Amino acid sequence: MGTRILTVKENILAANTKEAGIIRELLNRHNIGMINIMSSPGSGKTSVILQTIHRLRDRYRIAVIEGDIASSMDTDKITRLNIPAVQINTSGGCHLDARMTRKALDALDLDRINLIFIENVGNLVCTADFDLGAHKKVVILSIPEGDDKPHKYPVMFVEADVVLVNKTDVLPHFDFKLEEFPAIISGLNPSARVFPVSAKTQDGLNRWISWIEETFSGTSCEDS
Amino acid sequence: MGTRILTVKENILAANTKEAGIIRELLNRHNIGMINIMSSPGSGKTSVILQTIHRLRDRYRIAVIEGDIASSMDTDKITRLNIPAVQINTSGGCHLDARMTRKALDALDLDRINLIFIENVGNLVCTADFDLGAHKKVVILSIPEGDDKPHKYPVMFVEADVVLVNKTDVLPHFDFKLEEFPAIISGLNPSARVFPVSAKTQDGLNRWISWIEETFSGTSCEDS
Repeated sequence: MGTRILTVKENILAANTKEAGIIRELLNRHNIGMINIMSSPGSGKTSVILQTIHRLRDRYRIAVIEGDIASSMDTDKITRLNIPAVQINTSGGCHLDARMTRKALDALDLDRINLIFIENVGNLVCTADFDLGAHKKVVILSIPEGDDKPHKYPVMFVEADVVLVNKTDVLPHFDFKLEEFPAIISGLNPSARVFPVSAKTQDGLNRWISWIEETFSGTSCEDS
Repeated sequence: MGTRILTVKENILAANTKEAGIIRELLNRHNIGMINIMSSPGSGKTSVILQTIHRLRDRYRIAVIEGDIASSMDTDKITRLNIPAVQINTSGGCHLDARMTRKALDALDLDRINLIFIENVGNLVCTADFDLGAHKKVVILSIPEGDDKPHKYPVMFVEADVVLVNKTDVLPHFDFKLEEFPAIISGLNPSARVFPVSAKTQDGLNRWISWIEETFSGTSCEDS
C-alpha cells in the first residue's frame, strides 16, 4: 500500500507543478507578481499582509487570496481595506494547491492588479510541497515558536526566498537567539533573506517592503 | 481525479482506524494508558511533556513516543531524564499514523510501562484525522497563537478531550481573551476540558496533572 500511496502523491505533485506553470505564464502575461506566504497558525500572516498593504497600496494594485480550512475571518479583514480578496475554503485540506489558486485567480480582474499575496493555510509542513505558481515563497516564523523550527521543519525553510521573523516586540520574553538565526537559515538555504519584523510595532518592516519593491519593480502601478 | 484521491484517503483512514483499534486492545491488555498530544510547531508539546514527567514519574512508569519530520532533538531531551523514548521520523510526513505508532510500541517493553505520551508532529491540521490508538487526545494552543484558532482549525478542537492553553506567563503581551476562551471551546466541543498552563513557570499544571491521575487511576504503579 505504501508504494501505491507514494505513486498517487507523485502524480498529484506532478499535476500540481504543471498547473503552477500555467499560472505563472498567466501572471507574467498580465505583468502581475505573486507571493505565497506560509507559516504555522498564528505566526502573523494576516497582520503582515495588512501592514504590507498599507505601505504599498499607493504604488501597487494589490489583491489577496486567502486560504483557510474554515471561516472567512481573514478575508473580512482584507476587504475592509477595499482590497480585492478571494476566499478559498479547503474544507479540511491542509494546504492550497495550484488548481485552487487558479480558480481564485479566475475571480479576480487581472487587468487591474499587479501584486497578489496568497495567505496559505496555517501549516509549516504540507504547504511547502505545493507550487502555487507564485514567483516567490515567504515563510513567517514568529519568536514564540522558537529558533529550533528550521531544523525540525526543514523543507519549508529550504524552499523559502524570504524568512520573516515576526513578533520581535516580544523577544525579551522568549529564548530565541535572533542574532544567530540568519546563520541557521543560511546553513539550510544560503540564498534566503532573513528579515526580523514586528507587524505589531512595525519595527523592521522597511527591509521587507524594500525587498518587495526590488523584486517586483517591473509590476508597480507607476510603470503600467 | 478528485474522487479517486478522496477514495484513497478514505481507504487510508479506514485502515488506520482498524490498526488503532488493535493498538488500544494491546494497551488495555497491558493496562497502559496512552495520550496523543497535538499542536502547531512551537506551542510547547515537549516542555509540557517534560514537566508532566517530573510530576508523575514517581507514580507512573512513563514512556514517550516522539514524532518528528526530521531530527531527534526532542527525544534527546526525554532520554536525558532516563525515560524510555522512541523516535519516529516521518521523513516529511505531516502526521503520525497508527502503523507508525504500533511500530514504536514494538520497541518498548510494555510490561514495564503504564503511561505513554505521544508527541505528534507539529501540525494543527493533519494530525487530527488519524486515530493512533491513544485513549485521550490533548491539544495544546499557546497564547501567542491567538484565541481565534479554534474557529479557524475546528477539527482538532472538536476532537480534543483536553485543551491546554500554554504560555500563560506571556498573556500580558498578547491580545488573547483567556477568560472567554473556555466558552469558545465549549461552543465547538462541550465535553472538552480547558486548562490554562505555563510549562515555563509551572503555573496551572496541577489541574492537568490531576486530570491525568483521575483518567488513568487504574494504571498507576501503585496498583500494579
